[in-house]
Amino acid sequence: MTQTIDPEKNYSAVGKPTRRMDGEEKLTGRTRYAGDLSFPGLLHARMVLSPYAHARILGIDSSAALAIPGVVAVYTAETLKMAKSHESSRSQSPLARDETFWSGHPVAVVLAETEALAEDGAAAVDVDYEPLPVVIDLVAAMDPSSPLTRPRKEEEPSEIAGGGTHADVGTAQVEDEEQEKLSPNVTDRAHMHSGDIEAGWREADAVIERTYRTHPVHQSYLEPQSIIVVPDKAGQQFTAYASSQGLFSARSDMAGALDLPERQIRVEPMPIGGAFGGKFGLVEPLAAALAAAIRKPVRLVYTRQEDLLAGNPAPQAVMTVKLGAKQDGTLVAMQAKLILDAGAFSGAAAGLAGYLISSVYRCPNTDIRAYEVLTNKVSVGAYRAPGAPQTAFALESAVTELCQELGMDPLEFRKKNALRGGDPSGNRRRPILPPLGLIECLESVEQHPLWKERAAQKAHPSAELAGWKIGIGLAVGGWPGGNDVAAAACRLESDGTVSVVIGTVDLTGSDTSLALIAAEGLGLNTSQVNIAHDATDTMPYSGATGGSKTIYSMGPAVMAAAQDARQQILQIASDMLEASVEDLEIENGAVAVKGVPGKSLTLQKIATASTSYSRRGPVYGQGRTPIPEGSPMYAAHLAKVAVDPETGEVRVLEYVAAQDVGRAINPPAVEGQIHGGVAQGIGWALLEGLEYDENGQALTATFMDYAMPHSFDVPNITPILVEVPSGVGPYGAKGVGEPPVIPVAGAIANAIYDAVGVHPSEIPITPERLFTALQ
Amino acid sequence: MTQTIDPEKNYSAVGKPTRRMDGEEKLTGRTRYAGDLSFPGLLHARMVLSPYAHARILGIDSSAALAIPGVVAVYTAETLKMAKSHESSRSQSPLARDETFWSGHPVAVVLAETEALAEDGAAAVDVDYEPLPVVIDLVAAMDPSSPLTRPRKEEEPSEIAGGGTHADVGTAQVEDEEQEKLSPNVTDRAHMHSGDIEAGWREADAVIERTYRTHPVHQSYLEPQSIIVVPDKAGQQFTAYASSQGLFSARSDMAGALDLPERQIRVEPMPIGGAFGGKFGLVEPLAAALAAAIRKPVRLVYTRQEDLLAGNPAPQAVMTVKLGAKQDGTLVAMQAKLILDAGAFSGAAAGLAGYLISSVYRCPNTDIRAYEVLTNKVSVGAYRAPGAPQTAFALESAVTELCQELGMDPLEFRKKNALRGGDPSGNRRRPILPPLGLIECLESVEQHPLWKERAAQKAHPSAELAGWKIGIGLAVGGWPGGNDVAAAACRLESDGTVSVVIGTVDLTGSDTSLALIAAEGLGLNTSQVNIAHDATDTMPYSGATGGSKTIYSMGPAVMAAAQDARQQILQIASDMLEASVEDLEIENGAVAVKGVPGKSLTLQKIATASTSYSRRGPVYGQGRTPIPEGSPMYAAHLAKVAVDPETGEVRVLEYVAAQDVGRAINPPAVEGQIHGGVAQGIGWALLEGLEYDENGQALTATFMDYAMPHSFDVPNITPILVEVPSGVGPYGAKGVGEPPVIPVAGAIANAIYDAVGVHPSEIPITPERLFTALQ
Repeated sequence: MTQTIDPEKNYSAVGKPTRRMDGEEKLTGRTRYAGDLSFPGLLHARMVLSPYAHARILGIDSSAALAIPGVVAVYTAETLKMAKSHESSRSQSPLARDETFWSGHPVAVVLAETEALAEDGAAAVDVDYEPLPVVIDLVAAMDPSSPLTRPRKEEEPSEIAGGGTHADVGTAQVEDEEQEKLSPNVTDRAHMHSGDIEAGWREADAVIERTYRTHPVHQSYLEPQSIIVVPDKAGQQFTAYASSQGLFSARSDMAGALDLPERQIRVEPMPIGGAFGGKFGLVEPLAAALAAAIRKPVRLVYTRQEDLLAGNPAPQAVMTVKLGAKQDGTLVAMQAKLILDAGAFSGAAAGLAGYLISSVYRCPNTDIRAYEVLTNKVSVGAYRAPGAPQTAFALESAVTELCQELGMDPLEFRKKNALRGGDPSGNRRRPILPPLGLIECLESVEQHPLWKERAAQKAHPSAELAGWKIGIGLAVGGWPGGNDVAAAACRLESDGTVSVVIGTVDLTGSDTSLALIAAEGLGLNTSQVNIAHDATDTMPYSGATGGSKTIYSMGPAVMAAAQDARQQILQIASDMLEASVEDLEIENGAVAVKGVPGKSLTLQKIATASTSYSRRGPVYGQGRTPIPEGSPMYAAHLAKVAVDPETGEVRVLEYVAAQDVGRAINPPAVEGQIHGGVAQGIGWALLEGLEYDENGQALTATFMDYAMPHSFDVPNITPILVEVPSGVGPYGAKGVGEPPVIPVAGAIANAIYDAVGVHPSEIPITPERLFTALQ
Repeated sequence: MTQTIDPEKNYSAVGKPTRRMDGEEKLTGRTRYAGDLSFPGLLHARMVLSPYAHARILGIDSSAALAIPGVVAVYTAETLKMAKSHESSRSQSPLARDETFWSGHPVAVVLAETEALAEDGAAAVDVDYEPLPVVIDLVAAMDPSSPLTRPRKEEEPSEIAGGGTHADVGTAQVEDEEQEKLSPNVTDRAHMHSGDIEAGWREADAVIERTYRTHPVHQSYLEPQSIIVVPDKAGQQFTAYASSQGLFSARSDMAGALDLPERQIRVEPMPIGGAFGGKFGLVEPLAAALAAAIRKPVRLVYTRQEDLLAGNPAPQAVMTVKLGAKQDGTLVAMQAKLILDAGAFSGAAAGLAGYLISSVYRCPNTDIRAYEVLTNKVSVGAYRAPGAPQTAFALESAVTELCQELGMDPLEFRKKNALRGGDPSGNRRRPILPPLGLIECLESVEQHPLWKERAAQKAHPSAELAGWKIGIGLAVGGWPGGNDVAAAACRLESDGTVSVVIGTVDLTGSDTSLALIAAEGLGLNTSQVNIAHDATDTMPYSGATGGSKTIYSMGPAVMAAAQDARQQILQIASDMLEASVEDLEIENGAVAVKGVPGKSLTLQKIATASTSYSRRGPVYGQGRTPIPEGSPMYAAHLAKVAVDPETGEVRVLEYVAAQDVGRAINPPAVEGQIHGGVAQGIGWALLEGLEYDENGQALTATFMDYAMPHSFDVPNITPILVEVPSGVGPYGAKGVGEPPVIPVAGAIANAIYDAVGVHPSEIPITPERLFTALQ
């Protein structure tokens, strides 16, 4: 279902449901991923992981490992040469030196001729540890009396975790006038405020304050972290086949690790088996350093256990939210204390979390504090809308409880207070936000039977669910909208088709959408447009795929390149047809003189001319995207759940997700993003969470222990595509990838609250936790 | 020594002697060529060659070969699937079907796990032949009574061999009014004439007529014909690593063989170990068909013997030249009959030979006939200036004998009659030729001591050469100048260097010259410019490397791309420095405001800005070259030789080569081209020639039998770079690769004539041939 706000929709390619170009190859199992490749002399890497969350390394004995025939080398932080300048970066200093900081911290790497031999070798490496005090609870870690997660040098630069790569918000100002006494485990603080929070509380007729807790959630991509690095004979040129979200960022990461100019690193485009934010340079530096050291191709493909122990999951959070509203439902005060657990290295983007929680509703008086804390757990990375599922769970739960307090319809409350285009952004960095569709999304779900007839919907559970309680929950969420620079080229092929040349990674079918954009610009069918990728040596620069910004920032570059190619094609045709460019149009794979039937030239003929006798040269269009601001994107979700009060078990029965996508370039691709995001959100809400014991031992190191949603956990999902066009994105498109995961935990928690009157304060809402709360 | 005609020479990069970028890697042996690559499951191909020059294939028994463990498959024309539409093309129908047409014609291909096993397999294939009559002598082959080289179907299209890829001349008109009775072995005829030849003879005071003969000469590149083709799992996508002069032409050749759209073929750029015109798609279709059939990577790397038996050498020629001049030295009549032996398949470019012989001197009355004849020898291909060494040997020998007849100084005669800019081309297709430096080259060698003091030079042979006769010979030669379309891109890198992105193959150091061109356009040092190649999937289109046209046609595209990138850089700098673009300049890797010391920005900073906060997008310049006419290029050579009248042995003692290069972009690279061309010319003149017995058996199938010049055969060579700028080439550059080989055989023959008074009529001038002539 698509609800278009823009009446001007009249496109021939854009908006046309189109099959993914990579679909057949993937569905038939022909796609070859990085780990599937083989090279002569390829060595397999297996890591030796620390069993201790915090320990001193007294010694590493590799002799037994090296005695195994086929084990070629064992590297440690001492013996693996890497650039010294990145010692505070986990990925640039991937092996523990002196101390280990989490259970799963790589201590050594074994290289062997087969994967099995590497595994045998890793098991035979003997490491002598002296256990040290561990820091596990993120709140306790903030106390000045807490042990240190890891020693921090005085001169070590402050590890400020900005959200820059994901959004245009950055870390807000830290106000040091009020020096809280905090442990050095706190590595980032952001404080945003507006108005007068105390005046806000005085004005409020109802105030609620709640504390919410989440657990670390793993991206759980199908394809684990994977990379092969092939050095040249001189050890000067390296070619990487990486499951990475950014070709150019992977190149930078590897060049940094090897201290080489970027041009000596070549990163090949590879199909990616899922990433969700988790594949940004975690393994590239290590693999590059190994290949440089051994001068042979090295394959580092995580096992699932390695990925759960030594990946970079989403941060755990403890969030206290206090809201005050007037009796008419006007939100007048919002205070929040957000503590994000980064694990052993910085990266939790506390400032972004603060921005997110303050960018959903208008509120004149705010006081938001966000903290990043280090603990002895695996350090975190980006995962689909970093910080947003956590903060949306907290905010949307609190808002719903506030509505209960006010006796107000939660949808009415949200419509009344929703952020609108023209409002300032949460941290006031953008004084005037562009058009955004939060209200429109709320109006969409308001009209949906699940909301409109919710009393009736709740009245008749099926026989199977006799005794269960039915509830319907509403939640919203937003994402500021990433952006990036990009460039693209567009080439006319000898067969009259067109190739769009880009340096981005296709994670989600973006190639197909970009082909639609190019086809629209050129006046071609999508089948006549091919998307061509190649390595970093020659591609037009583009940023990494992530932050819901690929179509948004790459699309305009492709549009411009297609437009440039179109002009070049028309110029050649103009020479050949002896007609002015203005009188020409491209239709059905040919350039025709408008209004003169039969006077036309196929693109194939123009291609031949362009590479032979034309006076213009080959068609090679080019497009460059400047860096505008992001276009914020919002979603409103409805969840219908059934709760078994006897056991605390929850089933999601139905789901409606309205989202402002600006313009759906390829509607089924957008719907697919919403399906996937909601499914992952159900994981956040009900199932997923990395667990640690009091010594920091990971209790969830396999998929037997770490619960992912199965197909039967995911109900029918109805996506509603709301189109409030962006002034920047191609044909009005906004990002679509991140929003669908954001409101899910809140919507389900609110539905449970609706069903049983108890509001869960911790996700995942396991039967055990809900049962306990119900007692 | 460089003699510049253009006074406006004031460049910072262009013209600066610069080391080849690929030099270190090649000199240290680190370069990896196509045949050096390895892939999992790689199969090695070895061909079964026909021992008969013409035979019927009665049967092929592969059972013994297939019984060898490790031999995987044997393919014949019957079993190897290739597109049916190219049956008259040797490369598209590489395996003999029904009949073999030369001794060396591939009959079958064996695929095996190792090269040695493939060789064993090839030896074990049992082919049953029935010998057929052979056609060996090219003159006899023209007679209507001659046996046929191969059966020709009525409907087979005429195999017109144009010189289109090498020059802009094409095949001239065939006048059928006078139907000569010729064997169907004659596959191409060209007849060019001007004025009234009979009137010319009447006007002439002196007339000479001579017949000259050459032998087939092999390109003898260091790296043999080599290719690896890797199919994807579905057999739909093919990646080729080919020692080929053209990435895009190789793609077309393979797409044609497999009947697939070009986009399903990816051709990777590879370093090339010599080509000289001989690597244009000979092996690509066969290798592609093998990889498609077996669905595994296939490596086809010729042995030296295969290359000599089944390569594509330069054609043998028999040329009768008749010249008439007035007593004052004015050339008034020129008649020529040129017979080129194409071997078993068309490709000798007869029309081009006719053009070449008529495009050196002004002559009002001409009558040039050129013929291509098929014989049962290996079919020919391009070799450095196709047709020109042969025709220049004939023409320059005849001119020198005519001067003798006239009693005229041969340099004066040539200056008097030399073609000049503004004259029409030999076939009158170009009514007005652009500036060309034949006169200037003649004036250059005229001033050289070897000519100026030639009496003295000849007077004093060294003691070692006592009894030998010394002679000095002069010859000239020209090449019409190839051209092609091209496109290029230009990217600013994060370290402030610039990458030029091109789809050409670097055969001769062209990358370094293109870097100089880009550096000049950008205001950078050459060390700040990198040349980046990638595969056909994404590269800007450019034609193959050949025809002395790479710098000439690619250079302007690189210039334009650099200029575009420069504009983009200046625009970003203009935003950042708040200065207008017109006030900015690029100097020492930074953009500076003219006249404001200290107000500047490094390119590195601009690169960072362009991929982050700039309002312009990443720097990605683009350039496209239209297709202008070629710029003809001429050379004048002097050879000093010693002849032992007792044995007929000839030594070249000194060599001077003046050449109009328009503008020497990288002078040592141009001089290197001249050194190499002269050395190869010495091979043509004195040593090289494929020989066949009366049954068509090749007598020169190894380098033991086929004589190449050794270092001691090549004297000191003095290149003189004459610069008569082209109005089209970058900074005035003309092509340089082809001319230096053209006059050599003529200059040496004329020097021998000068020494001993006998003019050799056949090259190579072996001691045996010269001794016989002297008797």
